[in-house]
Amino acid sequence: MDTIFYNGTIYTQDQAYPACSAIAVKNGVIAALGSDQEMLALASSRTERIDLAGRFVVPGFIDSHLHFIYDAMVRRTIDLSETKSLSEAMELCRGRVSEISEKGGWLLAGGFNQDDWIEKTMPTRTDLDAISEEVPVVLQRACLHISVCNTKALALSGLLESCPDGIVREQMQNAISEAEPLPDLDELKELIQDAARAAARAGITEVHTDDFTVLPGTCGKLILQAYRELSEAGKLDVRIYEQCNLETLPELKQFLAAGHRTGDDYGFFRIGPLKIITDGSLGAHTAAMLAPYCNAPETCGVLNYTDEKLQEMISLAQEYGMQMAIHCIGDGALEQTLNALRRAHYENPKANLRHGIVHCQIMSEKQQDWFQKLNLLAYIQPIFVRYDMHIVEDCVGEELEATSYNWRRFAELGVHQCAGSDCPVEKFDILPNLQYAVTRKDPVSGKTWYPQYGLTLEEALQAFTYEGAYAGFSEDVRGTISVGKYADLTVLDRNLFEIPVEEISGAKVVLTMTGGKVTYRAIS
Amino acid sequence: MDTIFYNGTIYTQDQAYPACSAIAVKNGVIAALGSDQEMLALASSRTERIDLAGRFVVPGFIDSHLHFIYDAMVRRTIDLSETKSLSEAMELCRGRVSEISEKGGWLLAGGFNQDDWIEKTMPTRTDLDAISEEVPVVLQRACLHISVCNTKALALSGLLESCPDGIVREQMQNAISEAEPLPDLDELKELIQDAARAAARAGITEVHTDDFTVLPGTCGKLILQAYRELSEAGKLDVRIYEQCNLETLPELKQFLAAGHRTGDDYGFFRIGPLKIITDGSLGAHTAAMLAPYCNAPETCGVLNYTDEKLQEMISLAQEYGMQMAIHCIGDGALEQTLNALRRAHYENPKANLRHGIVHCQIMSEKQQDWFQKLNLLAYIQPIFVRYDMHIVEDCVGEELEATSYNWRRFAELGVHQCAGSDCPVEKFDILPNLQYAVTRKDPVSGKTWYPQYGLTLEEALQAFTYEGAYAGFSEDVRGTISVGKYADLTVLDRNLFEIPVEEISGAKVVLTMTGGKVTYRAIS
Repeated sequence: MDTIFYNGTIYTQDQAYPACSAIAVKNGVIAALGSDQEMLALASSRTERIDLAGRFVVPGFIDSHLHFIYDAMVRRTIDLSETKSLSEAMELCRGRVSEISEKGGWLLAGGFNQDDWIEKTMPTRTDLDAISEEVPVVLQRACLHISVCNTKALALSGLLESCPDGIVREQMQNAISEAEPLPDLDELKELIQDAARAAARAGITEVHTDDFTVLPGTCGKLILQAYRELSEAGKLDVRIYEQCNLETLPELKQFLAAGHRTGDDYGFFRIGPLKIITDGSLGAHTAAMLAPYCNAPETCGVLNYTDEKLQEMISLAQEYGMQMAIHCIGDGALEQTLNALRRAHYENPKANLRHGIVHCQIMSEKQQDWFQKLNLLAYIQPIFVRYDMHIVEDCVGEELEATSYNWRRFAELGVHQCAGSDCPVEKFDILPNLQYAVTRKDPVSGKTWYPQYGLTLEEALQAFTYEGAYAGFSEDVRGTISVGKYADLTVLDRNLFEIPVEEISGAKVVLTMTGGKVTYRAIS
Repeated sequence: MDTIFYNGTIYTQDQAYPACSAIAVKNGVIAALGSDQEMLALASSRTERIDLAGRFVVPGFIDSHLHFIYDAMVRRTIDLSETKSLSEAMELCRGRVSEISEKGGWLLAGGFNQDDWIEKTMPTRTDLDAISEEVPVVLQRACLHISVCNTKALALSGLLESCPDGIVREQMQNAISEAEPLPDLDELKELIQDAARAAARAGITEVHTDDFTVLPGTCGKLILQAYRELSEAGKLDVRIYEQCNLETLPELKQFLAAGHRTGDDYGFFRIGPLKIITDGSLGAHTAAMLAPYCNAPETCGVLNYTDEKLQEMISLAQEYGMQMAIHCIGDGALEQTLNALRRAHYENPKANLRHGIVHCQIMSEKQQDWFQKLNLLAYIQPIFVRYDMHIVEDCVGEELEATSYNWRRFAELGVHQCAGSDCPVEKFDILPNLQYAVTRKDPVSGKTWYPQYGLTLEEALQAFTYEGAYAGFSEDVRGTISVGKYADLTVLDRNLFEIPVEEISGAKVVLTMTGGKVTYRAIS
């Protein structure tokens, strides 16, 4: 054997392997499960023995919806949220100039609030020019409504005349992001590896990621190449299932013409579903509703597609046997999408496509029933409840609130629910997300929100493991700890079933193994 | 929709579709499930509506181990078992001569017993010459120990001198079967289609079949071609998963070198596991035991391979990622096979191979535990109990009997059990087989045999449907009645859950649908 874990509590999630304390791994596969004695008997002099010291092993976490590369880009932004003074912030930025200058990039920082600084003053164009005159420098305020630029950044963004003081507000900020250079192949690979390291630290062995928006209008060409090359070089430590975000029919046609299909397998990298975004967000009142917002009666939100355009895309993807993962937050977007999926399916049913709705937040019970009838997956983000519990009733009223985010009913309907973080919208720390799935309680305020709609801990773990594998057509080789599945494992410092549910988020990932390779390790 | 079944009781075997009375089918796929009203609303003028009149629909039956082509060959043998006189038997044979003569085949008949005939005399070479002098004629007695030949058959078999009276006994009969012409491509196709028609009548939508022995030493080449061509021409009404029976290492190497692998997919025809036969049968005392037979202490049965030869084949198949289905009846054969599979797996574990043991009859609990530990499938033939209940204790003694054929314990261990008939050893009528799985009771004698080792009806149905799909890596598209799976359906004339279990075998298949095509229909 290559590795033997022993002296642990193994939560196999497979009834065939109910009680075991040890796992033997070889060739990236779980070769055997059993008692310490049985497994250690399989060791040779070349076997690495890992004493779990009573720790808790679960199937590797799968985050079923996030933005992997974008998250890595956000992580590269210098975090100013903890700075106590303008000078400290300037110092932090100056320290990064030479590194960034070498790569020819922009110096981006964010999260500052001048009220937290002893100087209590906004940074100026002049302050930032003092950081660098060659490297474009942009500092965004924590509120996201204001950015400050140095002269170089203003010039490249074409804002020298309109914002001579360097202060750029609201939509004007788009000019900055449009001027920022797009990552090239090497940078993409670095970003992916940064993100993979962070994911491994979080116990994640597989992500379903929506990345194409990072390079708009390219149908993800360079991104696919980056993932493929990393996978082929054995440099991908997290399994990637790409949710291929294509905005228009011509882009979808181009993508299909290039021969890409759901399931194309490059080892650790695979082509996932077509991703379509049909509406916006609740907070911005852009999630598309069937009725006007209660707290903004002038709007029903925004549908990104006409019925016809959406139908065209969905029917074409159906024809080509592409899986689909469709973003719907409002019940209006969901209604439009359900209609289109139903029509495509009834006109041209195909076996085993596993379409799903990403977010599926605001909905009626009748709409929810269609998940069962059309065999649709629900991609849920349990931790969204933390924020949304405070706004849903105001947005949609009590009646519609009462049938929304109802994971309990999905479970009763036999609907497959896979869970994710939508990172960087939320951090991809699985444990707080898991806790919200079970408790639906804000640990800070103590407020709960329809706690009876929560999942059991068993179900919640399954949503972050087996159901993610199911969403990626790989439940036969991942998602449980079973002999003959890949050794994708996450070790936690405590048994989640033996602590109060309010303490789940406090559990720590101490080791991650993906395909038999230890990708993160904080224990000896 | 192409077809709508309504007014039925649908046993979906899928918790997401618990209660429905109607099924809508299009493009070979189950497009929708629901109430009569919901489904009939999806009908167009081109939809065929089938009124189930309360009948019972189950997922299409899957027979997970049989000999499809050989069964068709046996079916072509003229059945003399019901004849009342020699002259009636001669008449029956004469009636088939011209047809067989045209095809250049042999006239084969079987099942006679001269004690049932008014003449009470054995047929003679002269009697059979009177049937034909050009066509070889062979009549086998019901006991299988004696065949009678005409002059032509004797001549072709080289038996003119040794058996001048036309009576050929015991092993001498091998000369006859070796002389019989082997089927060519066209005949294979006819045989397959014959068998497929019979299977459809029995409600079977998929078989896992071991056929290569029909054309020894050919690595199944012509058989694969026949299935492929039938599948490509749309002339295969039953799905075929070939259990590729290869006897020697050179044959296995040749087969692999030709590029064949488990899972190769030609539509209705797919390459299944490597099939290896490691021992014989209980009745003949050739099943290999760890200890001598109680009722034949001079023998432990016969192992077909040395440990080394078996290990070589199993390790090579493992290396190439071939699934394996290995015939073991005695605990000696099982021990040898478990050792070889364990070694191959521990030395070279691979994901998701789904190896299994065919028959797995005589075993200890410790051996049975290894099914769980190595994640092996059990290919069981419940109806074997009918005969075996009378001989097992005599063969192996009470203690080993008590741990053999224990399907209940397999179920408790979480071992996948798929069920089959081994046809033509037993008929591939699923319903009597299903009844034995549940009752383990001979309905004629009333004798039961360890009834507590039986399966529940739910489990037994699953063994003949979902678990068969699982054994063929297709549980994602078959094995339950679910939206988005293929429309493989079997309609029975009564609800198996509403009749006494002793009446299950009396239920009739009235309609079979495979991939949306009605392959058998006895209702309007």
